[in-house]
Amino acid sequence: MSKKNILVGQSGGPTSVINASLYGVVSAGMAHADRVDKVIGMVNGIEGFLQGKTTVLSDIPADELKLLQTTPAAYLGSCRYKLPEDLDDPVFPELFAKFEEMNIGYFFYCGGNDSMDTVSKLSRYGAKIGSDIRCMGVPKTIDNDLIITDHCPGYGSAAKYVATTIRQVALDAVVYDKKFVTIIEVMGRHAGWLTASAVLARKFEGDNPKLIYMPETDFTMEQFFADLDRCMAQEKSVVVAVSEGIHDKDGTFICEYARQDVAVDNFGHKQLTGTAAYLADAVSAHYPGIKVRGIELSLTQRCGVTNGSATDMEEATQVGSLAVEEAMKGETGKMIAFIREPGSEYKITYQPVDVNEVCNEEKPFPAEWINAEGNDILQGYIDYALPLIQGNTPVVYEDGLPKFIYRK
Amino acid sequence: MSKKNILVGQSGGPTSVINASLYGVVSAGMAHADRVDKVIGMVNGIEGFLQGKTTVLSDIPADELKLLQTTPAAYLGSCRYKLPEDLDDPVFPELFAKFEEMNIGYFFYCGGNDSMDTVSKLSRYGAKIGSDIRCMGVPKTIDNDLIITDHCPGYGSAAKYVATTIRQVALDAVVYDKKFVTIIEVMGRHAGWLTASAVLARKFEGDNPKLIYMPETDFTMEQFFADLDRCMAQEKSVVVAVSEGIHDKDGTFICEYARQDVAVDNFGHKQLTGTAAYLADAVSAHYPGIKVRGIELSLTQRCGVTNGSATDMEEATQVGSLAVEEAMKGETGKMIAFIREPGSEYKITYQPVDVNEVCNEEKPFPAEWINAEGNDILQGYIDYALPLIQGNTPVVYEDGLPKFIYRK
Repeated sequence: MSKKNILVGQSGGPTSVINASLYGVVSAGMAHADRVDKVIGMVNGIEGFLQGKTTVLSDIPADELKLLQTTPAAYLGSCRYKLPEDLDDPVFPELFAKFEEMNIGYFFYCGGNDSMDTVSKLSRYGAKIGSDIRCMGVPKTIDNDLIITDHCPGYGSAAKYVATTIRQVALDAVVYDKKFVTIIEVMGRHAGWLTASAVLARKFEGDNPKLIYMPETDFTMEQFFADLDRCMAQEKSVVVAVSEGIHDKDGTFICEYARQDVAVDNFGHKQLTGTAAYLADAVSAHYPGIKVRGIELSLTQRCGVTNGSATDMEEATQVGSLAVEEAMKGETGKMIAFIREPGSEYKITYQPVDVNEVCNEEKPFPAEWINAEGNDILQGYIDYALPLIQGNTPVVYEDGLPKFIYRK
Repeated sequence: MSKKNILVGQSGGPTSVINASLYGVVSAGMAHADRVDKVIGMVNGIEGFLQGKTTVLSDIPADELKLLQTTPAAYLGSCRYKLPEDLDDPVFPELFAKFEEMNIGYFFYCGGNDSMDTVSKLSRYGAKIGSDIRCMGVPKTIDNDLIITDHCPGYGSAAKYVATTIRQVALDAVVYDKKFVTIIEVMGRHAGWLTASAVLARKFEGDNPKLIYMPETDFTMEQFFADLDRCMAQEKSVVVAVSEGIHDKDGTFICEYARQDVAVDNFGHKQLTGTAAYLADAVSAHYPGIKVRGIELSLTQRCGVTNGSATDMEEATQVGSLAVEEAMKGETGKMIAFIREPGSEYKITYQPVDVNEVCNEEKPFPAEWINAEGNDILQGYIDYALPLIQGNTPVVYEDGLPKFIYRK
């Protein structure tokens, strides 16, 4: 069997552990020295690849490569590029001609729903033309909204960041003997998985965050103020977690009431900002004289590897390695999914699943994990999420700060 | 010698290590069992004390007490209460009568400039009436703006948080192959000490943050856009750090252009928010089509002990213990200051200094550490600050999240 090269890319929003998956792909790929020549990275995903931007990963010295495991964001750069629906589009032969030219035998793409859509199209086009290139999906998303898999790499670290930060802010917010409302905005457009992790910050019954609002339920200002009335009667300091994607019953995002100029990205997703700021202003107006602060966790929640989960990092690495192993066995058009074994002890097995079943679907947050009032998260979620945030990512420090690997 | 009680309080903005100083006071106080009966905490500082709110700290079990060292915010609660300038005000005899009643022999107050003002007034009133109560100041402030002392407990951890977070955000901000401006707002009204720590995030020549704006220089939008033009010609992703307190040549805070309803706290400090948001909007308008994000680090920077400095935590503990030791020696009206020994190796000694010299003064950020263009921080600061962020705070984890101590 002649040696082939591996091509690997990253796509969509970065996470704290997408580079751990890249490390898994590169290290597992290099271990197949009998079948693999080089591991080549696409720079800025399929979009950058089409512009000829690549870098050789298998040349990186081992000690430097190891830093990938604990470096957040996307080492290779990312993109939000959607391949055409029509497999007769000329971009497909163009891509496969490039693959041929570069002697690619294996293609790995790490990302969320949209990235799995890319893997789906490439594997379907590959099948159509009889290519033997194996195309595999490596899941990642802080949104945790891929279906079939129990959870997604990247989620545990983001959840741990959110819960850690809210637990710390809740302590800070209680120091003055004054009424104080703190509103913390968490990422997640349509699925509230990451917002739900705010509940993990709660240390004792009645602890903050007192209220958690998810995009799975309709949000009303009336209910919000009624909830705040009740909480403020009990506690001086009320911390509220909200999803950036909370919306009214007509589907209008709450932040849209503040901003009419909401931008739309290439996939038609609305770019949202300002939910916490909008609500903080509304609370200030509703309760004159009360101290109010809106905090948007923003980019920090998806790159905060220094508050990341070791479990997440290890699983992210595994999922990259296993994608390589499955491709070596002949699999294509598959994504590695996590299957959680039943029982009280946390145990994960890995399984390749058809990427066509995964792409362009979103796993909803279970309705039974949200309370009837739509302002809190229940124990079922806590049992689900706690195993995912165990252990601290073993970030390497140099001169007092985290040491990362940078693309030259 | 009959036994006396210790009274200790916290005041002003919380930090990641103000409780480490409290731990220092409590543990050192309890070690003087021959002279100290109980260590009593004022709840919500002098303001809460006047309302009769106290808690006994020397009853806390040792293993729980130890958690104080790594618990952020203010365990005892804080206040922003200013004692009257006039020592003939009836609040002073009222306070000293309470001290008498509670058999207080030693008074410790942990805070910044305003808290040292409280220590100054109490020690001066005490001298006036011939009280033998010893009043000592324990410094803390993330603003690092107390004079005489080399630096302040709380600063190292906040600086490490800011630098760590910006380094991580800078990696995230570069993943897309698109022009992207990220503006990160750091706390610090008048002194840019904490904003300056953004420079520590820079890993290599030309790395982000490309621009750092301090309140020590006048800010103009013209210069800002000229700086951005130059940086955006070099790099796709430009990360900018700004102090919340940047202002124009007339002293008007930049964020005031966005908000006319700027609130004022009890000390007459303006409450500032929205500088990053204001600048992000301005950049969006100036460079149409460019991706822009404003991130306000907000409360997270002063309570982010999971990104805290072990050096800071150890020094904060020391400063609390040494305040007790000095009081036992008979000192009063003093604050424990850090003196940095000359030489390339970092070595700190501790010295009691007259609190009257410290209070109500602000240590300016050295002009020679800001570049001529007023948009960057120079090596002198880096040499000063790096020793302060060494080591990671040994936070205790339980079930995947930091374990803190809570006041019952």
